[in-house]
Amino acid sequence: MEARKSTGSLTIMTEIVLPNDTNTFGNLMGGRLMYWMDIAAALSAQKHCNAPVVTASVDNISFENPIKLGNAVHIEAKVTRSFNTSMEVHLKVWGEDLTQQYKYKSNEAYYTFVALDPNRKPRPVPQLIAETPEEKRLFDGALRRRQLRLILGGKLRPDDATELKALFVKE
Amino acid sequence: MEARKSTGSLTIMTEIVLPNDTNTFGNLMGGRLMYWMDIAAALSAQKHCNAPVVTASVDNISFENPIKLGNAVHIEAKVTRSFNTSMEVHLKVWGEDLTQQYKYKSNEAYYTFVALDPNRKPRPVPQLIAETPEEKRLFDGALRRRQLRLILGGKLRPDDATELKALFVKE
Amino acid sequence: MEARKSTGSLTIMTEIVLPNDTNTFGNLMGGRLMYWMDIAAALSAQKHCNAPVVTASVDNISFENPIKLGNAVHIEAKVTRSFNTSMEVHLKVWGEDLTQQYKYKSNEAYYTFVALDPNRKPRPVPQLIAETPEEKRLFDGALRRRQLRLILGGKLRPDDATELKALFVKE
Amino acid sequence: MEARKSTGSLTIMTEIVLPNDTNTFGNLMGGRLMYWMDIAAALSAQKHCNAPVVTASVDNISFENPIKLGNAVHIEAKVTRSFNTSMEVHLKVWGEDLTQQYKYKSNEAYYTFVALDPNRKPRPVPQLIAETPEEKRLFDGALRRRQLRLILGGKLRPDDATELKALFVKE
Amino acid sequence: MEARKSTGSLTIMTEIVLPNDTNTFGNLMGGRLMYWMDIAAALSAQKHCNAPVVTASVDNISFENPIKLGNAVHIEAKVTRSFNTSMEVHLKVWGEDLTQQYKYKSNEAYYTFVALDPNRKPRPVPQLIAETPEEKRLFDGALRRRQLRLILGGKLRPDDATELKALFVKE
Amino acid sequence: MEARKSTGSLTIMTEIVLPNDTNTFGNLMGGRLMYWMDIAAALSAQKHCNAPVVTASVDNISFENPIKLGNAVHIEAKVTRSFNTSMEVHLKVWGEDLTQQYKYKSNEAYYTFVALDPNRKPRPVPQLIAETPEEKRLFDGALRRRQLRLILGGKLRPDDATELKALFVKE
Repeated sequence: MEARKSTGSLTIMTEIVLPNDTNTFGNLMGGRLMYWMDIAAALSAQKHCNAPVVTASVDNISFENPIKLGNAVHIEAKVTRSFNTSMEVHLKVWGEDLTQQYKYKSNEAYYTFVALDPNRKPRPVPQLIAETPEEKRLFDGALRRRQLRLILGGKLRPDDATELKALFVKE
Repeated sequence: MEARKSTGSLTIMTEIVLPNDTNTFGNLMGGRLMYWMDIAAALSAQKHCNAPVVTASVDNISFENPIKLGNAVHIEAKVTRSFNTSMEVHLKVWGEDLTQQYKYKSNEAYYTFVALDPNRKPRPVPQLIAETPEEKRLFDGALRRRQLRLILGGKLRPDDATELKALFVKE
Repeated sequence: MEARKSTGSLTIMTEIVLPNDTNTFGNLMGGRLMYWMDIAAALSAQKHCNAPVVTASVDNISFENPIKLGNAVHIEAKVTRSFNTSMEVHLKVWGEDLTQQYKYKSNEAYYTFVALDPNRKPRPVPQLIAETPEEKRLFDGALRRRQLRLILGGKLRPDDATELKALFVKE
Repeated sequence: MEARKSTGSLTIMTEIVLPNDTNTFGNLMGGRLMYWMDIAAALSAQKHCNAPVVTASVDNISFENPIKLGNAVHIEAKVTRSFNTSMEVHLKVWGEDLTQQYKYKSNEAYYTFVALDPNRKPRPVPQLIAETPEEKRLFDGALRRRQLRLILGGKLRPDDATELKALFVKE
Repeated sequence: MEARKSTGSLTIMTEIVLPNDTNTFGNLMGGRLMYWMDIAAALSAQKHCNAPVVTASVDNISFENPIKLGNAVHIEAKVTRSFNTSMEVHLKVWGEDLTQQYKYKSNEAYYTFVALDPNRKPRPVPQLIAETPEEKRLFDGALRRRQLRLILGGKLRPDDATELKALFVKE
Repeated sequence: MEARKSTGSLTIMTEIVLPNDTNTFGNLMGGRLMYWMDIAAALSAQKHCNAPVVTASVDNISFENPIKLGNAVHIEAKVTRSFNTSMEVHLKVWGEDLTQQYKYKSNEAYYTFVALDPNRKPRPVPQLIAETPEEKRLFDGALRRRQLRLILGGKLRPDDATELKALFVKE
């Protein structure tokens, strides 16, 4: 299986905030945004591995700026690194008030997907080639984020998370 | 009001075909696709004029290849030309079977939008600058398509459609 | 296969404009209306041919009057003419403000559908019998609209569109 | 306020059963159908009284035949009688398998609506004129159904329901 | 087949009223509420019989208080009694204005479901054990409501509805 | 402002997985589930603080078992701890195959909400009283999870996260 470039998985999604997507303040509900992000990220992961995928996990998401009714939502998703049968996808989300020419960051996030074979068993995915400095930074950080996921999911002891531990323990 | 480049209005939308979007053959319904195209085109027109817009008309659309359940739908929208208070937006639509790495054309279309002021009256929009050969071809064809729209809408007599008439009458 | 009357395909649809169907002006979005029209027209075509159908094309649509939030949308669809394996459906759309007793035209349109057999291949459809003067006018115009569709779809040279050419060239 | 004919309130709605409207047997869910019936009946009541209305009650509904995925749903709604500020609407629902030319009854029902003024207080509605034998039968039965509603809602003692009592007590 | 307790079928559903669920007064539409109630009641019936179910009928529903946009909707469903192949489910619905700490009753209702075997034929369901005084009251009333359903559905003559008749004829 | 018990914020939501909620394997999409969780958690937070809330952040979520088409989704949400103007909500999610009497865990998660005043500025919320051992455990862990959120959001240096540091550095 040949390794593939990160750019090959780039997926761009644009949506508009309609009334039913909003809370009582007229701002996009967080849950609706996570729904769109899940679809954009899944498409990106599928582009990378050419197989059906299912969402395995979602990392911490902070919502920085509310996106208003009638504004555009821009989502960019790209695979940052692949492990044996899983892929981490990085998402960037902006809102845009098209009449004010004002574009603002909403959040960044990481979704992880597992590729499945026709029997619904995990199947190997191609390695990822990071080219730009940003892609390389995301590629490098992916190990650390993976350890954090495993600790938080109870599948790794903090002591064994060498990458992550370095953040807290300066030797 | 300063003229603006066509590229500034580029809008990219990606959707996935879910069960409720399909007919009994498991293919994307034409009406659902036209709904997505309307939103993508409206966002493109708003990017160009920075004002709210309403759909004025839609030109003939032929659906060439059905897009299947679970496939991705790619829509690209770009303003081709602006008239006093209206803009023509060109759309290209592809389907993509991500597991087969197979991308296929669905259709091309032209939507026309009118920009509105806060009193819901048409308001002037910036002129469009076409740069690439394709943008120039689309810009030039816009006049002919506009005449056709006016004839079909009963607002222009065929005799006065000089641009369009040339197609039928070689002098 | 016995020919059938146009009236047999009449389909009447009534909807109400809900918040999520509207743009920022509180008016029905064009794309949402085209979605409903597609379903009404598909039902009409299926009534005529008693087979599953898929949308083949949509002719130019001009949106004349916006339909407001809370208003009723009335759609009437009827087959105007059938060709070998396809049918043209004519649609009339009105809005209605029920509290003001005010009914207004939104648009007229033509959708074309192809009937499919169980292998998804086009299959023959019954001929159409036009009875009223309006049905006959629509039946006669169908040939001209078909030529226009074929020219716009790049499948007919303008020179060969004898019906359509007559509009521009008076001999 | 002038009395109005029952035919003036006739509302015809046609829908298609999409995947998300179905249960695990691929049949239209009862709740989804009651949602469509509510909208059709509300439009009918608004046609009669030219005022906004809210659903006050729904009478017993029996679902006779399941409506299948891809089939058409036909709903006909007509006001049967008006009381001071409320109207009873009668609904007939059929399913139709368009490829089999098979039309079958799903159910009949009665919805009751109250007309509201701008302060959300009940407001008087025009009397109803029943013309055809069926309209007259529905008009006459409306009193009996109203008594049943009031008893079931705990607002009338069975003893005072003279119309209804006659069903059980033959003197 | 062992009898089961009513409490085993308790189903609690909480929803929020979003813009598209509301009428022009900003209140939850009756039809949308009946849709949610149908799903809650179906889940309750399935819990009791461990088989797929379909909605057979819905008894009279009176909507007492409107539920407002942004308010919570609370639905509690519980099987009250089972007959051979059918189950009656009792529903209680409240609205709640969470910012005002104000909870108000919307309505009570009875839905009836039939359990189906894999060939879509009615299949026997377990008997119900009523324990609390309220459960016993609902269990006892179920016979009377069933007779009313059968009379209203034209399947029982009023004379034979001994339970119901007692309401009108005091001997 | 009086402190409030955790139990007062308990919110129970039950949904059914419909076709449009599923991926190509017929399993609930992760994004759709996060949407429902967001609404359940927001209702729980509003119950605690009696004010409108907006989603501030979502902690890592791992999806353990897929929830199948037609199965029930059970979500339980409860506030674990409140800070000045924010509340952490704990969610537990199960799927249930009602015909098989099989209930399985899907995931656990933490959502954080900020309460807003009418000017959309953060406003103080009541303190939380944890009573049961589980509530106390969740209350105690909330500080650690908050530090992790702040580090991941770039608002706290790992060195200052004393609670969290203890996990990695045993002194």
